Amino acid sequence: MPTITVEGPPIKVEQKRELVKKLTDVAVKVYKIEHITVLIRENSSENVGINGQLLLDRKRE
Amino acid sequence: MPTITVEGPPIKVEQKRELVKKLTDVAVKVYKIEHITVLIRENSSENVGINGQLLLDRKRE
Amino acid sequence: MPTITVEGPPIKVEQKRELVKKLTDVAVKVYKIEHITVLIRENSSENVGINGQLLLDRKRE
Amino acid sequence: MPTITVEGPPIKVEQKRELVKKLTDVAVKVYKIEHITVLIRENSSENVGINGQLLLDRKRE
Amino acid sequence: MPTITVEGPPIKVEQKRELVKKLTDVAVKVYKIEHITVLIRENSSENVGINGQLLLDRKRE
Amino acid sequence: MPTITVEGPPIKVEQKRELVKKLTDVAVKVYKIEHITVLIRENSSENVGINGQLLLDRKRE
Repeated sequence: MPTITVEGPPIKVEQKRELVKKLTDVAVKVYKIEHITVLIRENSSENVGINGQLLLDRKRE
Repeated sequence: MPTITVEGPPIKVEQKRELVKKLTDVAVKVYKIEHITVLIRENSSENVGINGQLLLDRKRE
Repeated sequence: MPTITVEGPPIKVEQKRELVKKLTDVAVKVYKIEHITVLIRENSSENVGINGQLLLDRKRE
Repeated sequence: MPTITVEGPPIKVEQKRELVKKLTDVAVKVYKIEHITVLIRENSSENVGINGQLLLDRKRE
Repeated sequence: MPTITVEGPPIKVEQKRELVKKLTDVAVKVYKIEHITVLIRENSSENVGINGQLLLDRKRE
Repeated sequence: MPTITVEGPPIKVEQKRELVKKLTDVAVKVYKIEHITVLIRENSSENVGINGQLLLDRKRE
Protein backbone atom coordinates (compact mmCIF):
# COMPACT_ATOMS: atom_id res chain seq x y z
CA MET A 1 0.00 0.00 0.00
CA PRO A 2 -0.75 2.57 -1.31
CA THR A 3 -2.54 0.81 -4.17
CA ILE A 4 -3.84 2.73 -7.20
CA THR A 5 -6.53 1.12 -9.37
CA VAL A 6 -7.33 2.68 -12.74
CA GLU A 7 -10.59 1.81 -14.54
CA GLY A 8 -10.46 2.88 -18.18
CA PRO A 9 -10.77 1.78 -21.79
CA PRO A 10 -8.23 -0.63 -23.33
CA ILE A 11 -4.80 0.96 -23.91
CA LYS A 12 -1.48 -0.11 -25.44
CA VAL A 13 1.38 -1.53 -23.38
CA GLU A 14 3.47 1.60 -23.96
CA GLN A 15 0.67 3.69 -22.45
CA LYS A 16 0.49 1.30 -19.49
CA ARG A 17 4.22 1.67 -18.94
CA GLU A 18 3.90 5.47 -18.88
CA LEU A 19 0.78 5.37 -16.70
CA VAL A 20 2.38 3.13 -14.06
CA LYS A 21 5.59 5.14 -13.95
CA LYS A 22 3.92 8.54 -13.63
CA LEU A 23 1.11 7.58 -11.24
CA THR A 24 3.72 5.97 -9.00
CA ASP A 25 5.90 9.10 -9.07
CA VAL A 26 2.90 11.17 -7.94
CA ALA A 27 1.96 8.74 -5.15
CA VAL A 28 5.54 8.50 -3.83
CA LYS A 29 5.75 12.29 -3.71
CA VAL A 30 2.42 12.78 -1.89
CA TYR A 31 2.51 9.81 0.51
CA LYS A 32 6.30 9.72 1.10
CA ILE A 33 6.00 5.93 0.79
CA GLU A 34 8.10 3.98 -1.73
CA HIS A 35 6.05 0.80 -2.13
CA ILE A 36 3.27 1.56 -4.65
CA THR A 37 1.14 -0.96 -6.55
CA VAL A 38 -0.86 0.03 -9.66
CA LEU A 39 -3.64 -2.09 -11.16
CA ILE A 40 -4.89 -1.25 -14.65
CA ARG A 41 -8.34 -2.47 -15.64
CA GLU A 42 -9.38 -2.35 -19.26
CA ASN A 43 -13.13 -2.20 -19.77
CA SER A 44 -14.88 -3.16 -23.00
CA SER A 45 -17.23 -0.48 -24.34
CA GLU A 46 -20.14 -2.88 -23.88
CA ASN A 47 -19.42 -3.09 -20.14
CA VAL A 48 -19.50 0.64 -19.40
CA GLY A 49 -22.58 2.81 -19.16
CA ILE A 50 -22.48 6.61 -19.13
CA ASN A 51 -25.69 8.41 -18.22
CA GLY A 52 -27.82 5.38 -18.96
CA GLN A 53 -26.31 4.37 -22.29
CA LEU A 54 -23.67 1.76 -23.11
CA LEU A 55 -20.42 3.32 -24.31
CA LEU A 56 -20.75 0.91 -27.26
CA ASP A 57 -23.96 2.60 -28.36
CA ARG A 58 -22.73 6.15 -27.79
CA LYS A 59 -19.83 5.52 -30.16
CA ARG A 60 -22.14 4.28 -32.88
CA GLU A 61 -24.25 7.43 -32.90
CA MET B 1 -19.95 10.00 -9.57
CA PRO B 2 -22.14 8.26 -8.49
CA THR B 3 -20.55 5.12 -9.92
CA ILE B 4 -22.32 1.75 -9.83
CA THR B 5 -20.28 -1.44 -10.22
CA VAL B 6 -22.07 -4.72 -10.84
CA GLU B 7 -20.28 -8.04 -10.27
CA GLY B 8 -22.17 -10.91 -11.86
CA PRO B 9 -22.04 -13.79 -14.33
CA PRO B 10 -21.58 -13.16 -18.08
CA ILE B 11 -24.66 -11.66 -19.75
CA LYS B 12 -25.69 -10.67 -23.29
CA VAL B 13 -25.30 -7.18 -24.65
CA GLU B 14 -29.07 -6.66 -24.66
CA GLN B 15 -29.14 -7.43 -20.93
CA LYS B 16 -26.28 -4.98 -20.36
CA ARG B 17 -28.20 -2.29 -22.20
CA GLU B 18 -31.25 -2.85 -20.00
CA LEU B 19 -29.14 -3.06 -16.83
CA VAL B 20 -27.34 0.21 -17.50
CA LYS B 21 -30.50 2.07 -18.41
CA LYS B 22 -32.52 0.93 -15.40
CA LEU B 23 -29.78 1.16 -12.76
CA THR B 24 -29.07 4.68 -13.96
CA ASP B 25 -32.75 5.64 -13.74
CA VAL B 26 -32.80 4.45 -10.11
CA ALA B 27 -29.60 6.30 -9.20
CA VAL B 28 -30.72 9.56 -10.83
CA LYS B 29 -33.98 9.38 -8.91
CA VAL B 30 -32.38 8.69 -5.50
CA TYR B 31 -29.30 10.94 -5.74
CA LYS B 32 -30.83 13.77 -7.85
CA ILE B 33 -27.57 13.74 -9.82
CA GLU B 34 -27.54 13.27 -13.59
CA HIS B 35 -24.00 12.02 -14.19
CA ILE B 36 -24.01 8.26 -13.48
CA THR B 37 -21.37 5.72 -14.53
CA VAL B 38 -22.07 1.96 -14.54
CA LEU B 39 -19.36 -0.70 -14.74
CA ILE B 40 -20.39 -4.28 -15.52
CA ARG B 41 -17.98 -7.04 -14.56
CA GLU B 42 -18.52 -10.52 -15.91
CA ASN B 43 -17.02 -13.26 -13.76
CA SER B 44 -16.22 -16.75 -15.02
CA SER B 45 -17.74 -19.55 -12.91
CA GLU B 46 -14.22 -20.72 -12.06
CA ASN B 47 -13.43 -17.35 -10.46
CA VAL B 48 -16.36 -17.22 -8.04
CA GLY B 49 -16.69 -19.18 -4.83
CA ILE B 50 -19.94 -19.50 -2.89
CA ASN B 51 -19.73 -20.96 0.61
CA GLY B 52 -16.36 -22.54 -0.07
CA GLN B 53 -17.07 -24.08 -3.45
CA LEU B 54 -16.30 -22.81 -6.96
CA LEU B 55 -19.45 -21.92 -8.90
CA LEU B 56 -18.01 -24.14 -11.62
CA ASP B 57 -18.22 -27.17 -9.35
CA ARG B 58 -21.66 -26.32 -7.96
CA LYS B 59 -23.08 -26.29 -11.48
CA ARG B 60 -21.67 -29.73 -12.21
CA GLU B 61 -23.34 -31.37 -9.27
CA MET C 1 -23.65 -12.66 -6.35
CA PRO C 2 -24.60 -10.51 -8.21
CA THR C 3 -23.17 -7.75 -6.02
CA ILE C 4 -23.85 -4.07 -6.73
CA THR C 5 -21.53 -1.43 -5.24
CA VAL C 6 -22.57 2.21 -5.32
CA GLU C 7 -20.00 4.97 -4.80
CA GLY C 8 -21.67 8.31 -4.11
CA PRO C 9 -22.01 11.22 -1.70
CA PRO C 10 -23.51 10.72 1.79
CA ILE C 11 -27.28 10.09 1.74
CA LYS C 12 -30.05 9.60 4.31
CA VAL C 13 -31.19 6.19 5.50
CA GLU C 14 -34.52 6.59 3.71
CA GLN C 15 -32.66 7.12 0.43
CA LYS C 16 -30.54 4.05 1.13
CA ARG C 17 -33.66 1.99 1.68
CA GLU C 18 -35.11 3.12 -1.64
CA LEU C 19 -31.79 2.64 -3.45
CA VAL C 20 -31.34 -0.93 -2.20
CA LYS C 21 -34.89 -1.93 -3.00
CA LYS C 22 -34.93 -0.51 -6.52
CA LEU C 23 -31.42 -1.53 -7.59
CA THR C 24 -32.22 -5.06 -6.40
CA ASP C 25 -35.47 -5.13 -8.37
CA VAL C 26 -33.54 -4.18 -11.53
CA ALA C 27 -30.83 -6.79 -10.95
CA VAL C 28 -33.31 -9.60 -10.24
CA LYS C 29 -35.17 -8.76 -13.45
CA VAL C 30 -32.04 -8.67 -15.65
CA TYR C 31 -30.07 -11.57 -14.14
CA LYS C 32 -33.01 -13.81 -13.17
CA ILE C 33 -31.15 -14.44 -9.90
CA GLU C 34 -32.76 -13.78 -6.54
CA HIS C 35 -29.75 -13.36 -4.28
CA ILE C 36 -28.52 -9.77 -4.68
CA THR C 37 -26.17 -7.85 -2.36
CA VAL C 38 -25.88 -4.05 -2.46
CA LEU C 39 -23.02 -2.10 -0.85
CA ILE C 40 -23.42 1.66 -0.44
CA ARG C 41 -20.27 3.73 -0.02
CA GLU C 42 -20.54 7.31 1.15
CA ASN C 43 -17.61 9.48 0.12
CA SER C 44 -16.70 12.75 1.80
CA SER C 45 -16.34 15.68 -0.61
CA GLU C 46 -12.67 15.94 0.36
CA ASN C 47 -12.05 12.38 -0.88
CA VAL C 48 -13.45 12.81 -4.38
CA GLY C 49 -11.77 14.61 -7.27
CA ILE C 50 -13.54 15.56 -10.48
CA ASN C 51 -11.40 16.73 -13.38
CA GLY C 52 -8.46 17.49 -11.10
CA GLN C 53 -10.29 19.35 -8.37
CA LEU C 54 -11.57 18.15 -4.99
CA LEU C 55 -15.37 18.13 -4.81
CA LEU C 56 -14.88 20.13 -1.59
CA ASP C 57 -13.29 22.98 -3.53
CA ARG C 58 -15.76 22.89 -6.40
CA LYS C 59 -18.62 23.41 -3.98
CA ARG C 60 -16.95 26.47 -2.48
CA GLU C 61 -16.61 28.27 -5.77
CA MET D 1 -21.58 -10.83 2.79
CA PRO D 2 -18.78 -11.16 3.87
CA THR D 3 -17.24 -10.96 0.40
CA ILE D 4 -13.54 -11.64 -0.19
CA THR D 5 -11.90 -10.34 -3.37
CA VAL D 6 -8.43 -11.58 -4.31
CA GLU D 7 -6.31 -9.69 -6.85
CA GLY D 8 -3.42 -11.79 -8.07
CA PRO D 9 -1.67 -13.30 -11.07
CA PRO D 10 -3.36 -16.01 -13.19
CA ILE D 11 -3.62 -19.38 -11.41
CA LYS D 12 -4.88 -22.87 -12.28
CA VAL D 13 -8.38 -24.06 -11.48
CA GLU D 14 -7.06 -26.46 -8.84
CA GLN D 15 -5.41 -23.52 -7.05
CA LYS D 16 -8.68 -21.57 -7.26
CA ARG D 17 -10.54 -24.48 -5.69
CA GLU D 18 -8.09 -24.60 -2.79
CA LEU D 19 -8.07 -20.80 -2.41
CA VAL D 20 -11.86 -20.55 -2.23
CA LYS D 21 -12.19 -23.41 0.21
CA LYS D 22 -9.50 -22.20 2.61
CA LEU D 23 -10.30 -18.47 2.52
CA THR D 24 -13.93 -19.34 3.23
CA ASP D 25 -12.96 -21.55 6.18
CA VAL D 26 -11.00 -18.64 7.67
CA ALA D 27 -13.82 -16.14 7.16
CA VAL D 28 -16.47 -18.44 8.63
CA LYS D 29 -14.30 -18.96 11.69
CA VAL D 30 -13.59 -15.24 12.26
CA TYR D 31 -16.99 -13.76 11.36
CA LYS D 32 -19.21 -16.64 12.60
CA ILE D 33 -21.21 -16.14 9.39
CA GLU D 34 -21.80 -19.01 6.96
CA HIS D 35 -22.56 -17.16 3.73
CA ILE D 36 -19.20 -16.21 2.18
CA THR D 37 -18.54 -15.13 -1.42
CA VAL D 38 -15.05 -15.16 -2.94
CA LEU D 39 -14.11 -13.36 -6.17
CA ILE D 40 -10.79 -14.22 -7.83
CA ARG D 41 -9.32 -11.69 -10.23
CA GLU D 42 -6.48 -12.72 -12.49
CA ASN D 43 -4.30 -9.83 -13.63
CA SER D 44 -2.04 -9.92 -16.67
CA SER D 45 1.56 -8.91 -15.95
CA GLU D 46 1.14 -5.96 -18.30
CA ASN D 47 -1.69 -4.59 -16.12
CA VAL D 48 0.19 -4.53 -12.82
CA GLY D 49 2.83 -2.02 -11.78
CA ILE D 50 5.12 -2.48 -8.79
CA ASN D 51 7.15 0.51 -7.68
CA GLY D 52 6.72 2.24 -11.02
CA GLN D 53 7.50 -0.66 -13.31
CA LEU D 54 5.18 -3.05 -15.14
CA LEU D 55 5.39 -6.60 -13.80
CA LEU D 56 5.92 -7.60 -17.44
CA ASP D 57 9.16 -5.62 -17.59
CA ARG D 58 10.40 -6.75 -14.19
CA LYS D 59 10.17 -10.37 -15.30
CA ARG D 60 12.22 -9.69 -18.42
CA GLU D 61 15.15 -8.25 -16.54
CA MET E 1 0.18 -8.23 -4.87
CA PRO E 2 -1.69 -10.49 -4.20
CA THR E 3 -4.12 -8.19 -2.42
CA ILE E 4 -7.11 -9.55 -0.48
CA THR E 5 -10.04 -7.23 0.29
CA VAL E 6 -12.66 -8.33 2.80
CA GLU E 7 -16.06 -6.63 2.92
CA GLY E 8 -17.91 -7.48 6.11
CA PRO E 9 -19.59 -6.13 9.23
CA PRO E 10 -17.57 -4.30 11.92
CA ILE E 11 -15.30 -6.61 13.93
CA LYS E 12 -12.92 -6.27 16.91
CA VAL E 13 -9.20 -5.68 16.52
CA GLU E 14 -8.44 -9.18 17.80
CA GLN E 15 -10.61 -10.64 15.03
CA LYS E 16 -8.81 -8.45 12.47
CA ARG E 17 -5.47 -9.73 13.70
CA GLU E 18 -6.61 -13.34 13.29
CA LEU E 19 -8.23 -12.64 9.90
CA VAL E 20 -5.09 -11.00 8.48
CA LYS E 21 -2.80 -13.72 9.75
CA LYS E 22 -4.88 -16.63 8.49
CA LEU E 23 -5.92 -15.18 5.13
CA THR E 24 -2.27 -14.37 4.46
CA ASP E 25 -1.20 -17.93 5.35
CA VAL E 26 -3.71 -19.29 2.82
CA ALA E 27 -2.62 -16.89 0.07
CA VAL E 28 1.09 -17.57 0.60
CA LYS E 29 0.42 -21.29 0.36
CA VAL E 30 -1.68 -21.09 -2.83
CA TYR E 31 0.25 -18.38 -4.71
CA LYS E 32 3.76 -19.22 -3.48
CA ILE E 33 4.26 -15.46 -3.11
CA GLU E 34 5.33 -13.92 0.20
CA HIS E 35 4.15 -10.32 -0.21
CA ILE E 36 0.42 -10.26 0.67
CA THR E 37 -1.70 -7.21 1.51
CA VAL E 38 -5.08 -7.51 3.26
CA LEU E 39 -7.64 -4.69 3.40
CA ILE E 40 -10.54 -5.01 5.85
CA ARG E 41 -13.65 -2.94 5.19
CA GLU E 42 -16.25 -2.59 7.89
CA ASN E 43 -19.72 -1.81 6.58
CA SER E 44 -22.48 -0.27 8.66
CA SER E 45 -25.75 -2.23 8.59
CA GLU E 46 -27.44 0.77 6.97
CA ASN E 47 -25.04 0.57 4.01
CA VAL E 48 -25.65 -3.07 3.10
CA GLY E 49 -28.68 -4.46 1.33
CA ILE E 50 -29.49 -8.16 1.11
CA ASN E 51 -32.22 -9.22 -1.29
CA GLY E 52 -33.65 -5.72 -1.47
CA GLN E 53 -33.68 -4.90 2.23
CA LEU E 54 -31.20 -2.94 4.36
CA LEU E 55 -29.36 -5.14 6.85
CA LEU E 56 -30.44 -2.56 9.42
CA ASP E 57 -34.10 -3.38 8.80
CA ARG E 58 -33.61 -7.14 8.67
CA LYS E 59 -32.09 -7.08 12.13
CA ARG E 60 -35.05 -5.18 13.52
CA GLU E 61 -37.59 -7.72 12.38
CA MET F 1 -14.34 7.19 -16.74
CA PRO F 2 -11.40 6.80 -16.37
CA THR F 3 -11.74 6.45 -12.60
CA ILE F 4 -8.69 6.27 -10.32
CA THR F 5 -9.08 4.81 -6.82
CA VAL F 6 -6.29 5.25 -4.30
CA GLU F 7 -6.10 3.05 -1.20
CA GLY F 8 -3.71 4.49 1.36
CA PRO F 9 -3.27 5.72 4.92
CA PRO F 10 -5.08 8.87 6.15
CA ILE F 11 -3.67 12.10 4.66
CA LYS F 12 -4.30 15.83 5.05
CA VAL F 13 -6.64 17.77 2.78
CA GLU F 14 -3.70 19.63 1.21
CA GLN F 15 -2.16 16.28 0.22
CA LYS F 16 -5.50 15.17 -1.22
CA ARG F 17 -5.68 18.33 -3.30
CA GLU F 18 -2.20 17.67 -4.71
CA LEU F 19 -2.90 13.98 -5.27
CA VAL F 20 -6.11 14.62 -7.21
CA LYS F 21 -4.57 17.33 -9.36
CA LYS F 22 -1.45 15.37 -10.28
CA LEU F 23 -3.06 11.95 -10.79
CA THR F 24 -5.61 13.62 -13.07
CA ASP F 25 -2.88 15.35 -15.08
CA VAL F 26 -1.19 11.98 -15.66
CA ALA F 27 -4.45 10.26 -16.67
CA VAL F 28 -5.47 13.03 -19.08
CA LYS F 29 -2.06 12.83 -20.72
CA VAL F 30 -2.07 9.02 -21.12
CA TYR F 31 -5.74 8.45 -22.00
CA LYS F 32 -6.37 11.67 -23.96
CA ILE F 33 -9.69 11.88 -22.09
CA GLU F 34 -10.65 14.93 -20.06
CA HIS F 35 -13.24 13.51 -17.67
CA ILE F 36 -11.32 11.89 -14.78
CA THR F 37 -12.70 10.90 -11.37
CA VAL F 38 -10.42 10.21 -8.39
CA LEU F 39 -11.56 8.43 -5.22
CA ILE F 40 -9.31 8.58 -2.15
CA ARG F 41 -9.77 5.92 0.51
CA GLU F 42 -8.16 6.38 3.90
CA ASN F 43 -7.54 3.11 5.73
CA SER F 44 -7.00 2.86 9.48
CA SER F 45 -3.83 0.99 10.47
CA GLU F 46 -5.99 -1.63 12.16
CA ASN F 47 -7.71 -2.43 8.85
CA VAL F 48 -4.57 -3.13 6.81
CA GLY F 49 -2.44 -6.25 6.97
CA ILE F 50 1.01 -6.51 5.43
CA ASN F 51 2.56 -9.97 5.22
CA GLY F 52 0.23 -11.34 7.85
CA GLN F 53 0.52 -8.58 10.43
CA LEU F 54 -1.76 -5.59 11.10
CA LEU F 55 -0.11 -2.29 10.22
CA LEU F 56 -1.12 -1.23 13.73
CA ASP F 57 1.11 -3.91 15.25
CA ARG F 58 4.03 -3.31 12.90
CA LYS F 59 4.17 0.33 13.97
CA ARG F 60 4.30 -0.63 17.63
CA GLU F 61 7.34 -2.82 17.25
